[in-house]
Amino acid sequence: MHSPLPKIVIAGAGRIAWHLGRRLKGKGMPVAHVVSRTAAHARELAQTLGSDWSDDWAEAPADADWLLIAVRDDAIAAVGEALSAAMPGVLATHTSGATPGTVLAPFFKRYGVFYPLQSFSKERMPVWSKIPFCVDAADPSDILFLKKTAKVIGNLVYQVNDSQRAMLHVAAVFANNFTNHCFAIAEKLLDEHDLPFEMLHPLMEETLQKAIADSPARMQTGPALRGDTDTMQRHLSLLAGHLHWQTLYRNLSDDIRQEIEPSAGTDE
Amino acid sequence: MHSPLPKIVIAGAGRIAWHLGRRLKGKGMPVAHVVSRTAAHARELAQTLGSDWSDDWAEAPADADWLLIAVRDDAIAAVGEALSAAMPGVLATHTSGATPGTVLAPFFKRYGVFYPLQSFSKERMPVWSKIPFCVDAADPSDILFLKKTAKVIGNLVYQVNDSQRAMLHVAAVFANNFTNHCFAIAEKLLDEHDLPFEMLHPLMEETLQKAIADSPARMQTGPALRGDTDTMQRHLSLLAGHLHWQTLYRNLSDDIRQEIEPSAGTDE
Repeated sequence: MHSPLPKIVIAGAGRIAWHLGRRLKGKGMPVAHVVSRTAAHARELAQTLGSDWSDDWAEAPADADWLLIAVRDDAIAAVGEALSAAMPGVLATHTSGATPGTVLAPFFKRYGVFYPLQSFSKERMPVWSKIPFCVDAADPSDILFLKKTAKVIGNLVYQVNDSQRAMLHVAAVFANNFTNHCFAIAEKLLDEHDLPFEMLHPLMEETLQKAIADSPARMQTGPALRGDTDTMQRHLSLLAGHLHWQTLYRNLSDDIRQEIEPSAGTDE
Repeated sequence: MHSPLPKIVIAGAGRIAWHLGRRLKGKGMPVAHVVSRTAAHARELAQTLGSDWSDDWAEAPADADWLLIAVRDDAIAAVGEALSAAMPGVLATHTSGATPGTVLAPFFKRYGVFYPLQSFSKERMPVWSKIPFCVDAADPSDILFLKKTAKVIGNLVYQVNDSQRAMLHVAAVFANNFTNHCFAIAEKLLDEHDLPFEMLHPLMEETLQKAIADSPARMQTGPALRGDTDTMQRHLSLLAGHLHWQTLYRNLSDDIRQEIEPSAGTDE
């Protein structure tokens, strides 16, 4: 980057704040200040990043260039409002997939989104080169800055508007949370029958590899797709101890079947 | 193996018959005969395997040691019955996860199951070392033979009884078909908003790696787990064009929530 280093403030001290803060520092873009309502959290992250910290919104540095709001979705607006008085000229972005960028518009002239599309956990190091960064901003030069910054700390950068990002987030819930829940159900069923979950790992790997190599819609197999009602009936009886999973089994099977026979079912 | 090579017959000429037949041959256990109702299919597979073939059940060789029935689940019993007259002394096994071994008991004294737990496709070469073989038989020496054979062509071998295998198959539907359907829904949602499905690949990889490294139940994240009803409401509105997916979204979210708050919902 030809421009001088931006002065960066992170609001929040949760998982995303930790991961982004450390990555920015590691890539030569140190964070100047961490602000969080909980002093202990702000201090701990600030120590790791070698930055200042504060638990008082009014103490955020007025000359900051970029404010990265990495807090719970439902706190973004309140944190933005609280910080806007101290740093009116800053580019304020949040890191949420589910929240419109415009939620910051009432408080900042320069606002946007810096959303890393990945499920972060404390224990696992993110593979930054594989994380799609979805950026957007009201101002074209801010978009350019966010794209450049995403490219510095990652590899995959997309400009994604609010309505696209909202749908991306719904899709991510299906591809991550709901998929993971199907794994969890499988795990529990095996556990109840003294079978190790490891037995399914190769199938899970293969399912993913096929879905990535081609379209998952085209790679579908199984009793629902085949319309094999005998097998489906047997499966439903085996789920008799889990009525809620019977319902899921029926709904998912109906929907798989509908993909190939749109007239076979009706929407509820 | 110290024992002489078994004389192997495969009934069926579908995907599993092809993959198993070629693997057996490649590992020095050639298939002697392929029998299928469709002459062209039997001939084509037999040519690949360098074996005899027939489209007439009565022509199956009477001195065969092992009959591998690799046909549709709902045809196993009929094929077994049709072949039993020609080869009464054979060890007859099917390759189905969803069908009890005992379905062959009326027709053969020696019966069992040789079930490779994987989703086979024409285009992709199976990674044999990673496929769990689930074997079972009525006779202990037949179990031993099936275990040895599975070890020759694969690596992971489990003795799994009928009721365990039935549950394994239900679990596999959740871990494979239903997971894949969640991927397919995500793909469709992105496609409708001009976003490439590739954007979700890293998240899908990470979801799988977490579920394999730890328990998927413990690795869950997302709005349903957090009880973030605002986000869930927004997601449901975004799914307004897909009423059936709204239902899936609700059911899956309820169930994720129930895992941590068993009293919060009731089974239907």
